[in-house]
Amino acid sequence: MIDLYTAATPNGWKASVALEEMGLEYTAHAVNLMKGEQKTPEFLAMNPNGRIPVIVDREADGHVVFESGAIMVYLAEKTGMFLPNDAKRKSQVIQWIMFQMGGIGPMMGQANVFHRYLEEKIPVAIARYQNEVRRLFTVLDGRLENREYLVDDYSIADMANWCWVRTYEWSGVSIEGLDNLIRWKNSIEARPAARRGVEVPNKIDKEALLKGAKNVVTK
Amino acid sequence: MIDLYTAATPNGWKASVALEEMGLEYTAHAVNLMKGEQKTPEFLAMNPNGRIPVIVDREADGHVVFESGAIMVYLAEKTGMFLPNDAKRKSQVIQWIMFQMGGIGPMMGQANVFHRYLEEKIPVAIARYQNEVRRLFTVLDGRLENREYLVDDYSIADMANWCWVRTYEWSGVSIEGLDNLIRWKNSIEARPAARRGVEVPNKIDKEALLKGAKNVVTK
Repeated sequence: MIDLYTAATPNGWKASVALEEMGLEYTAHAVNLMKGEQKTPEFLAMNPNGRIPVIVDREADGHVVFESGAIMVYLAEKTGMFLPNDAKRKSQVIQWIMFQMGGIGPMMGQANVFHRYLEEKIPVAIARYQNEVRRLFTVLDGRLENREYLVDDYSIADMANWCWVRTYEWSGVSIEGLDNLIRWKNSIEARPAARRGVEVPNKIDKEALLKGAKNVVTK
Repeated sequence: MIDLYTAATPNGWKASVALEEMGLEYTAHAVNLMKGEQKTPEFLAMNPNGRIPVIVDREADGHVVFESGAIMVYLAEKTGMFLPNDAKRKSQVIQWIMFQMGGIGPMMGQANVFHRYLEEKIPVAIARYQNEVRRLFTVLDGRLENREYLVDDYSIADMANWCWVRTYEWSGVSIEGLDNLIRWKNSIEARPAARRGVEVPNKIDKEALLKGAKNVVTK
């Protein structure tokens, strides 16, 4: 059994999509970011950076993993799924996860800050991040030309990038003309496990509410 | 033999510090970012994202690795050095590499953009990134309390974070009062291999110039 502490964000979905795709049993605990529940002493004891998602692997003496990219790699190595054993192919999957961790994620995050959250609208900052996100989308689109997935079979690299790319409208960035990216995005959206993953923890919250539970439900 | 395509940036140093620490033979090729050499067709064929560093492992049929975090993991797995075999400890090292890839790196990068590069000075953006970098430094400082390195022995997680943290002045962020972070930074700076790593490719350029070579020198 794994405990997942999460919220409805692209990084949160990376963990729940991986858990769903791997068919692992887990308990999702919704962390209310608006209430600052990710900054409580209990949460900081798990992740000193105060960010979701975090998993606690009860099958591994309560081993704690934070950083969504590290969670995906840990779960893939635990199950032997969605990460090739072959050194070169494994390295390619890690490269495209790092591309998401260092590029797609932070740049879409900053686009959201300046496009959505900050009251002061700063055109140069909005344009900077939206243009960079579009450029990164174009890199993915080129990679996906004549390739079904980023590296051979569907892997955690696809899950990681897809969890962010699917929120392109929220970042105010177009995917028009990026036909390979759109085809890839649609094919992942058609996977039942991926679809279930991006309903966590929202769907679970509603179920928990009906059952009178508080932010916690066992799947 | 490994070919390294790099420039004098924190991400570039991550690759050369790892290569030096592991004692691997490599040829450093300086990529002139100002001239846009990272956007040539030859370079994009190695990394479609057009970013340094990139390595080509001639001992592995010319396997190409881009993204500095992926290069570190690949080299650590190739040599069996600076990344524990034990699943939990390995996972902890990967967590702190992801912390650098998704946090320290992009946030210091954005601080540099608004503090250094953009002609238009936007106080809200400068403060946002400098404050976030200071917060992330504080997380590292807390982690390093009663710990010599981020995870047990010196690892690629220390190298990755150090290559960025050492440039704190360029980002305009203070490390005052973060005594654990300062002690850790100084202890890595005292390592001859780490010091050699952050002289690549600058020192190599000068040597190449003296020898009449063009941006390439065999170490």
